Amino acid sequence: MNNYATAAVIGASGYTGQELVRLLGAHPAIRVGAATSEAEAGAPVLGTGLRYVPSAAVDFSESELVFSCLPTGESAGWALRAREAGARVVDLSADLREGGAGAVYGVPELWREAIRGEDLVANPGCYPTGILLALAPLLAAGVVDRTRTIVIDAASGVTGAGRSAKRELLFGEVADDYRAYGVGNEHRHFAEIAAGLARLCSGEAPEFVFTPHLLPVRRGILETLYVPVIGRTGAAEVVAAWNEAYAEEPFVEVWREGLPTLRTSVQRNVVVVGAADVTGVEQGMVLVVASFDNLVKGAAGQALQNANLMLGLCEHEGLQR
Amino acid sequence: MNNYATAAVIGASGYTGQELVRLLGAHPAIRVGAATSEAEAGAPVLGTGLRYVPSAAVDFSESELVFSCLPTGESAGWALRAREAGARVVDLSADLREGGAGAVYGVPELWREAIRGEDLVANPGCYPTGILLALAPLLAAGVVDRTRTIVIDAASGVTGAGRSAKRELLFGEVADDYRAYGVGNEHRHFAEIAAGLARLCSGEAPEFVFTPHLLPVRRGILETLYVPVIGRTGAAEVVAAWNEAYAEEPFVEVWREGLPTLRTSVQRNVVVVGAADVTGVEQGMVLVVASFDNLVKGAAGQALQNANLMLGLCEHEGLQR
Amino acid sequence: MNNYATAAVIGASGYTGQELVRLLGAHPAIRVGAATSEAEAGAPVLGTGLRYVPSAAVDFSESELVFSCLPTGESAGWALRAREAGARVVDLSADLREGGAGAVYGVPELWREAIRGEDLVANPGCYPTGILLALAPLLAAGVVDRTRTIVIDAASGVTGAGRSAKRELLFGEVADDYRAYGVGNEHRHFAEIAAGLARLCSGEAPEFVFTPHLLPVRRGILETLYVPVIGRTGAAEVVAAWNEAYAEEPFVEVWREGLPTLRTSVQRNVVVVGAADVTGVEQGMVLVVASFDNLVKGAAGQALQNANLMLGLCEHEGLQR
Amino acid sequence: MNNYATAAVIGASGYTGQELVRLLGAHPAIRVGAATSEAEAGAPVLGTGLRYVPSAAVDFSESELVFSCLPTGESAGWALRAREAGARVVDLSADLREGGAGAVYGVPELWREAIRGEDLVANPGCYPTGILLALAPLLAAGVVDRTRTIVIDAASGVTGAGRSAKRELLFGEVADDYRAYGVGNEHRHFAEIAAGLARLCSGEAPEFVFTPHLLPVRRGILETLYVPVIGRTGAAEVVAAWNEAYAEEPFVEVWREGLPTLRTSVQRNVVVVGAADVTGVEQGMVLVVASFDNLVKGAAGQALQNANLMLGLCEHEGLQR
Repeated sequence: MNNYATAAVIGASGYTGQELVRLLGAHPAIRVGAATSEAEAGAPVLGTGLRYVPSAAVDFSESELVFSCLPTGESAGWALRAREAGARVVDLSADLREGGAGAVYGVPELWREAIRGEDLVANPGCYPTGILLALAPLLAAGVVDRTRTIVIDAASGVTGAGRSAKRELLFGEVADDYRAYGVGNEHRHFAEIAAGLARLCSGEAPEFVFTPHLLPVRRGILETLYVPVIGRTGAAEVVAAWNEAYAEEPFVEVWREGLPTLRTSVQRNVVVVGAADVTGVEQGMVLVVASFDNLVKGAAGQALQNANLMLGLCEHEGLQR
Repeated sequence: MNNYATAAVIGASGYTGQELVRLLGAHPAIRVGAATSEAEAGAPVLGTGLRYVPSAAVDFSESELVFSCLPTGESAGWALRAREAGARVVDLSADLREGGAGAVYGVPELWREAIRGEDLVANPGCYPTGILLALAPLLAAGVVDRTRTIVIDAASGVTGAGRSAKRELLFGEVADDYRAYGVGNEHRHFAEIAAGLARLCSGEAPEFVFTPHLLPVRRGILETLYVPVIGRTGAAEVVAAWNEAYAEEPFVEVWREGLPTLRTSVQRNVVVVGAADVTGVEQGMVLVVASFDNLVKGAAGQALQNANLMLGLCEHEGLQR
Repeated sequence: MNNYATAAVIGASGYTGQELVRLLGAHPAIRVGAATSEAEAGAPVLGTGLRYVPSAAVDFSESELVFSCLPTGESAGWALRAREAGARVVDLSADLREGGAGAVYGVPELWREAIRGEDLVANPGCYPTGILLALAPLLAAGVVDRTRTIVIDAASGVTGAGRSAKRELLFGEVADDYRAYGVGNEHRHFAEIAAGLARLCSGEAPEFVFTPHLLPVRRGILETLYVPVIGRTGAAEVVAAWNEAYAEEPFVEVWREGLPTLRTSVQRNVVVVGAADVTGVEQGMVLVVASFDNLVKGAAGQALQNANLMLGLCEHEGLQR
Repeated sequence: MNNYATAAVIGASGYTGQELVRLLGAHPAIRVGAATSEAEAGAPVLGTGLRYVPSAAVDFSESELVFSCLPTGESAGWALRAREAGARVVDLSADLREGGAGAVYGVPELWREAIRGEDLVANPGCYPTGILLALAPLLAAGVVDRTRTIVIDAASGVTGAGRSAKRELLFGEVADDYRAYGVGNEHRHFAEIAAGLARLCSGEAPEFVFTPHLLPVRRGILETLYVPVIGRTGAAEVVAAWNEAYAEEPFVEVWREGLPTLRTSVQRNVVVVGAADVTGVEQGMVLVVASFDNLVKGAAGQALQNANLMLGLCEHEGLQR
């Protein structure tokens, strides 16, 4: 008798897909039945006994679970096809994050009950994951001054941009460099962050500026937030709000002192948050730093949390705490 | 007959000292007569026929010009000794940047006339150089909203931290990582930036937050500034203010569109500035990015501009434009 | 009742020590009771509830197992003290690799029976581990032409050099560079390789040249061997010899075709070997590439294999296969 | 009146083309009249007042000099078209290195007289440049044992592979990795090295093995050669042979002791060579290390030497010595 749920991973040869297959390999209750890649069809899938097949070759009715790791724009079609065939689906692209096709937006720590038992979840973008988890308890605690602008300066490793062959992602271009990109509201995640904040605030969300930068590293995101706060709120109050919100959460790590660095969180399914006082300014501000692995808590690891909730498993199944 | 000014470089085996010796090698009117290093005394000085000597072995009365590249705390003593011996002195450490011993603070583009002919100049810190050059024309043009806080998020290559053997600067620590450090007002440059802004504003300087980060690259600084502005000021007005201020300046490069990246400026004696509109916020804000090489325009190159002014030479002598 | 063996890790804040503590955290039958560091005494040991203590504060009689990760020259004294107190000891330094104090040289795949139940094992150097495992089956199969010289060109990430603050290991020195070091027989591992080959060959070992290089990466070793072979021996015969020798070994991975890269083995307790034919030369030669993580199979992971054997546990306990 | 030779650079937006345009910007007797790029047509050419044009838009009859930096396979057609239009042509691709269309193979230090005044020169490949310059004096001095195999283990930065968007050159693939590629005689440069050695030896060239590796750095090549030598030849004799051959050569730097590293030569038009004794082997062998910048002495800088010779200028014009 088979106690495993069988999963198919669509678009499994990209960085997120590879990470997901790796994580699923250690999951006690899910096994990968198919992994697709048009470009690498026929090649072995590292860490499994499988070979990549084209997406069209997958019979979704044989999968209880389907993860789509295809690029945004190509993903929703496959996700919906899989759902129609009866699978529960986690879409890791941005295609359904605005709720299309009834998809639920999946940050488990914030909206867990909405995810449980669902059959279509839109996995959040990497940047929004850290930002929303860092800010949610502060907004709930009422310490954010919503009349002022939150500045979010973020830096990401290159795997966040996917594995497609693009000149601007060549080693010769990225190495020894550091650059802002997608400034203003150009980055796809800007609207996603805005929507997430609006949901957290019942509409009266604070304004924010978001500037992502490309780091010459493979993986990891570090977000530096300049949060306008009310009155004498300092780092200690921020840490207290996080501790209250996340005391029972295995995948959010709150630092009492000090600030996490990029590598603090790499290859772990966790967002690590720390805060520091900002001195010498009259209007209150607290410096917040969030560190997480764009491929794990920012993608494949969070997808696994969502899948566990959808299947009725323990949320942390298959994920090291 | 000798048309050269003879220079001594104190602390010449560090990253800044090496860069300075390299630049001086191409200077048509200055030649290096002595280069000191306690640790490498006796070893050849790359690119010259010299060997390192201990600082105590230098007879400063034989040098018209002395550059001190020693670490902060060790530098001022040698700088003053050299001046007493009759040399003109550029101190690249932070020891004299508050004006001690009558030292003049040397950002040529901002306070050129104060430097000309002087005999003791404190070369600015790397971070402040870019920040002051980016903000000065905006403050002068009156477009900055001084009631709000400027957020300065900066990232620097590792050579900015010097060449001393410290565990936290090991390759094994820095590679694949990215971290905030010296937050709040802990970084030595915080006070220097504050003093520079105060001078630019006759005292009524805007508040600012400054968060430096350590990048896993060898050289280069990228500063991302979130500048609160008045009314409908946008990137176009910011660029116009820069263009007016720097039209004749060979070492400030203003980009009409697009934002410079770290590598834009590496190995050049230039600060490159660009601006972008910030959308979706009610209170005006402009995104400003400054890119420069911490070892060149942030240190040795600017020291050469200062030295040229002190000696009555053309400011750009020996520096590629 | 306590089913765990209690281990002390001496010198636990270096790269190898950190890796070992991390691996022990997942071991089902060993738990870390003490972790020492003079420099970081009092600081928390990541991933455990412990704090670093000075080595002198450890009561070795409370540990069934002691790992010494101290630098060569400082390690043997502590190792012997621990053994006298009744602990089984794995010394990860080079101090006892020549068999001093009765220490057994611990490459489990080659000399497993000698290790089982022992109380003092010298864990091999990183470079020798890959070289001996790659060559042993070829020497046993008689395909190596012992009248000619084996050329071993190796490249290692920086963590192999330890975590001491040395100028030549600074990020500013190592980044963007690649260099040969310890050439000729200068590297400590030269004699260790020679001794290992002599043991494999009963004295009539082939000559070899060994040139390590320093790579600008944190971890991983890639060894490229140019192996003179007899007659028409090609890559296929080399692979066959490996397959026969290592069919049952979980920690040696033989590639039938293609060559592993550095990253193939990173963070896994494995040596991955591949071979390619060398064409266009009259005298037979096969190209052999070995890839392994200097901190895992080259140090902490192998130490765990040894410890398991010493304690009578299953050799792969606590190590992912 | 115009004292400049006008040059066109075909394929000017790749790494080699960019470097060449940069170097030409400092040349006192050549100026760039046109720079072509299909992909970036219309965009400004950094460091010039020009904009990229499509290759088909260039009137070659207006150029005294044409450099083709197109990929191998696309280059010869344009090179020959330019020669027909009356220009002198340096082809930096591999298309004409076997002498097609009467092209002369251009390593100036070895075959200078054959290049002088020519109208079609094939610029050598990067790897062969260092290998031939390192070995030529040793072969001439008769110290190489030609009955044994020279092992050439080489490592190159990524820009050597060009600027085309290929998945295997993405930052996410190359970073933190190191790999052998093009082993056996698969690399295009294998035959070029063989042909060069044959020419140096009048046919009786020694056999060699050549294994290039890809380094996670942007630029630079380090070649480690294991040279079988006759009798008691050691590093000192090797250095003596180099010194005799290259005493007057500004672009070959011979180190009396020590070995150059990758960064020794970066951004300079030079091959730096050093040697070390190999101890403990009965048959004589000397370790030789050659360091050079693949984009400068390995490509654009050497192309400039060739162009100078073709135009009858001083060979080192426009190149720093």
